[in-house]
Amino acid sequence: MNVSEIVADIRAKSEARGEPVESVYFIACGGSLAGIYAGKYLLERESVKLRVADYNAKQFVLTTPRAFNKNCIAVCCTLKGTPEVEEAIKLCNEVGAYTILICGDGNEDITEYADYIIRFKTVADVNTPMMETNISESLLLSFEILHQFEYYKFYEDAIQAFGFLENMAAKIRRYVNKGRAQEFAEMNKEEEVIYVMAGAPALGVGYAFSLCSLMEIQWIHSPFVNSAEYFHGSFETLDKNLSVLQLISDGRSREEDLRAESFLKRFGKKISILDAKELCIDEIKDTVKEYFNHVILDVALREYITQLAIVRKHPKEVRRYMWKMEY
Amino acid sequence: MNVSEIVADIRAKSEARGEPVESVYFIACGGSLAGIYAGKYLLERESVKLRVADYNAKQFVLTTPRAFNKNCIAVCCTLKGTPEVEEAIKLCNEVGAYTILICGDGNEDITEYADYIIRFKTVADVNTPMMETNISESLLLSFEILHQFEYYKFYEDAIQAFGFLENMAAKIRRYVNKGRAQEFAEMNKEEEVIYVMAGAPALGVGYAFSLCSLMEIQWIHSPFVNSAEYFHGSFETLDKNLSVLQLISDGRSREEDLRAESFLKRFGKKISILDAKELCIDEIKDTVKEYFNHVILDVALREYITQLAIVRKHPKEVRRYMWKMEY
Repeated sequence: MNVSEIVADIRAKSEARGEPVESVYFIACGGSLAGIYAGKYLLERESVKLRVADYNAKQFVLTTPRAFNKNCIAVCCTLKGTPEVEEAIKLCNEVGAYTILICGDGNEDITEYADYIIRFKTVADVNTPMMETNISESLLLSFEILHQFEYYKFYEDAIQAFGFLENMAAKIRRYVNKGRAQEFAEMNKEEEVIYVMAGAPALGVGYAFSLCSLMEIQWIHSPFVNSAEYFHGSFETLDKNLSVLQLISDGRSREEDLRAESFLKRFGKKISILDAKELCIDEIKDTVKEYFNHVILDVALREYITQLAIVRKHPKEVRRYMWKMEY
Repeated sequence: MNVSEIVADIRAKSEARGEPVESVYFIACGGSLAGIYAGKYLLERESVKLRVADYNAKQFVLTTPRAFNKNCIAVCCTLKGTPEVEEAIKLCNEVGAYTILICGDGNEDITEYADYIIRFKTVADVNTPMMETNISESLLLSFEILHQFEYYKFYEDAIQAFGFLENMAAKIRRYVNKGRAQEFAEMNKEEEVIYVMAGAPALGVGYAFSLCSLMEIQWIHSPFVNSAEYFHGSFETLDKNLSVLQLISDGRSREEDLRAESFLKRFGKKISILDAKELCIDEIKDTVKEYFNHVILDVALREYITQLAIVRKHPKEVRRYMWKMEY
């Protein structure tokens, strides 16, 4: 079944049961949780009927919301069968919820609990096709849920946008590799602390870059800042020695990103700005482009981390704890 | 009107209107958003009918969820009339939602948009009475909403717990000032980076300490870590030189905090642990104590930041940008 068919099937089942779908819960850990934020953000902002939330998988298991029941869709995601996600989907399955698992190849231990399976490939590979990342898939899934359960008037615009992604990605890669990615890497060759800032539609991709790329992969301390929260705390640490990477989104929240950008440029010196507008987001219709910021920025950031790893001579595969011991 | 009467009034109005309350949105910025997380966490986990979410006020205004309508309760919070919160409550008022404003004294520009007003005092003062913080008030408000709209079987236990808070706070202050707070301050006298980690019920208080106390007040870089996310990224930065403050909660999510604690102790050296269990949380009934972690930990952390400011000779009132310029 493709994504559209999965959603149609759930809808048919819920109608046959006579019990409407009440909620959509996005459940994962770390980079996967960050990835499926793309789908969560769309649905949470656009749905008028559904309760929408995202949870770290372990927290979902330990502090399950009482509203969770069989009339919920659980969208779980893991590349390699994360044990916490396995626990979570098992729970969802026992409760009788509609379980969708977005997962990497294999993972037989965990796919048995999934009513529906969507396969994805890691964004750790810069060349992973755009329609095979958990980011795009969660977003497409949410557009389908939104449209099939409630009708979404910009659905066609969204589907058209997905068709553009592969070409856009090629252009973005060429663009950032003509200097932007190298510039970021050079500026941060020796930095021990790099802030990452992002606005509402890019909170997932910003969190992923801070958590996975900088802290996990490069062992760089990285406070992650919601740009709309910046002036309520963390801006006080800014000076000319502080490195900050700011992701600027296009769409309704842009104003708040620009406000932070102007402050960063006024008082900072090691400021890297990555703006969705320089990454051809304008090729996507205004009606839906806000929801593609995450997808677009991610393409560029895959190149940023690749260059940073080279310049710092700290290969992307190096870990000191992960995969090396029990914890 | 007291908190219970406010909720009763909203319920009566919604019944008269024949339209049930659908959602509760918690809206604020920075430390206030962190504070009212206490109420959001309770309601989001325990309510079976209500859609519950929290938003930075500006993001709420710029990317208002389509589900927001007149059958929603908007809980807005600001100490001194934050402009973004003013914008948000104005919007909520125009839409016809039930607006509750938890705010500091005065604030006439903004109270005019509130259907109901609850006054609070800042936790920046260590002696602010326990029932006058936005943390306790948002929590009490959520217990009332939960009980009056859906019936909550542990309501009496919760109300009893609020009655204990002032005595508990006095004990907690004495306890941490007999060495724990000073120890934390001494260990972090020269640190430029301090991680703050917390689990599900303490994400608000952890975020507040990281954002407001460390970054805003002390200009210390502070990555904030959800303990259930720790092994999915940021644990890779841990070594014997890294300072980490971990908040351990009591309740259902404790297991995940303890897992992180054990790793921190195994590979770290500058680890400060603050456990709700050493802060007399056991005086509160098991049925509801999970929801009081935030309240309890906050009392101790007010002393921690006070001591840290003394040891670092960086008074709590010093700012370089905030209140000093337009931005």
